[in-house]
Amino acid sequence: MSSNTSVDPPGQAQAQAIHHELRNAENSAAFVLPKLQSMKESNPGLKLLDVGAGSGTITASFAKLLPDGHVTGLDLKAEILPRARTVAEIAGVKNVNFLQGDCKKLPFEDGTFDVVFCHQMLTHMPAPEDALREMLRVTKPGGIVAAREGDFKTEAVYPESPALLKFHKTVATMMGAAGGTETAGRQLLPWALKAGAERTNITLTFGTWLYVTQHEKDTWAGGLITTLKTGVLREKGVKAGLITEEECADMITAWESWAAGESSSISMMHGEIMIQK
Amino acid sequence: MSSNTSVDPPGQAQAQAIHHELRNAENSAAFVLPKLQSMKESNPGLKLLDVGAGSGTITASFAKLLPDGHVTGLDLKAEILPRARTVAEIAGVKNVNFLQGDCKKLPFEDGTFDVVFCHQMLTHMPAPEDALREMLRVTKPGGIVAAREGDFKTEAVYPESPALLKFHKTVATMMGAAGGTETAGRQLLPWALKAGAERTNITLTFGTWLYVTQHEKDTWAGGLITTLKTGVLREKGVKAGLITEEECADMITAWESWAAGESSSISMMHGEIMIQK
Repeated sequence: MSSNTSVDPPGQAQAQAIHHELRNAENSAAFVLPKLQSMKESNPGLKLLDVGAGSGTITASFAKLLPDGHVTGLDLKAEILPRARTVAEIAGVKNVNFLQGDCKKLPFEDGTFDVVFCHQMLTHMPAPEDALREMLRVTKPGGIVAAREGDFKTEAVYPESPALLKFHKTVATMMGAAGGTETAGRQLLPWALKAGAERTNITLTFGTWLYVTQHEKDTWAGGLITTLKTGVLREKGVKAGLITEEECADMITAWESWAAGESSSISMMHGEIMIQK
Repeated sequence: MSSNTSVDPPGQAQAQAIHHELRNAENSAAFVLPKLQSMKESNPGLKLLDVGAGSGTITASFAKLLPDGHVTGLDLKAEILPRARTVAEIAGVKNVNFLQGDCKKLPFEDGTFDVVFCHQMLTHMPAPEDALREMLRVTKPGGIVAAREGDFKTEAVYPESPALLKFHKTVATMMGAAGGTETAGRQLLPWALKAGAERTNITLTFGTWLYVTQHEKDTWAGGLITTLKTGVLREKGVKAGLITEEECADMITAWESWAAGESSSISMMHGEIMIQK
């Protein structure tokens, strides 16, 4: 999840930090990279904006791919920016800066960037077409807007169990209550049209993520167990009457045994959209 | 769907022919191609078996990719073989032959092939691990078994409508009644383990298919409308009490308006497994 939304309390951000920091341009923006490469060949000094940058791991890897360009990471939450700056420092990139700002009122002039990107952000907000419209506004003519959003409804957990199904349902309910949607991936095309893009300028693809190695499964289950112990799921879920303390405990056990299974995996479809301005 | 199963009456095979013939190695076996390329470099005379080859379009494109190798297409239904041979002839490939045979009793000696592949077949059968075990048996030591199966439960249709949801549910019910499953993609890993493969020799990935261009949507909706008018959905679905004639008519209208929509799409996750023998 992105933190460019006001619904996640700090507990959630912490619990998701480890998972989020597995993300980079290669695994989360692969659909943009061939276009980025061809744009870079004619203009090495590309300017890229990463909206809802969170802890900045995707932002930093974009900066590595554009050594003669410049990358800006923007997030609604000022408190995540120091972590993003540290991530960039560890990655050894200097052509990057991080700013606080709202994706629905981007603090930039029209036509500032060659590439404007977001990842797992639109799924959490009401009226995501407003963010896409802003992203198009700050893109130069000839530039591109690219977005990749999970389609949470397609999440495939194996093996399933009543506790894991309840977990999925609880997360979906909380996303909906916060104004988000569990079908963002499949809605990218209609959102782009609503934002004013013409159909002929839009390319829609789908990608997947998958956690199946032991390290991936431990990381994924570990993050969720943390949020079930001390994060938003326990705090908000129990308070809202969506889950009981006992169900939290069952879900923790279920994620532990899922991670330990030899044949277990979790995967999800992601919609990927590229808009040529 | 593959025709290497005894559940599809001829009406279904006809209705799906157009959709099936969009398939080729590039769009349906992309996850195998890098491995195939590297195997071909050390052994140009690779022998490949395509199990559940149906009308042979994937088989023929494998044959094109292996000009110095040989490809065998096998299908349970003898009546599809003439079409597969015509497809190969049109494609201009001569290094291919088609045979009738049962994927659970493959008519080959142990260790006959370098590569054994199937696509959208295991999802339709009870005990798919038996087919994978047979596929492993006829693979040479050092060869690979590769399978790609849809995970029908992840099908994402936009926009949704009651008629399209009912359509999805009806197909899922019929798949289940015929001994298949709507979660094949996520089950490839446990099936491979049951078939005797060791975890360290198995690679699981996920891919997607997507129909979003006008041509793709017309082809997809056209095939489904045919099956709703004269194919298995009307014949079997109505007889089994799963759908009414009126619901068939509603579904036809729903697919027509879906195909005509500017922002419509349909996508699905596919599990992809590669087993090193």
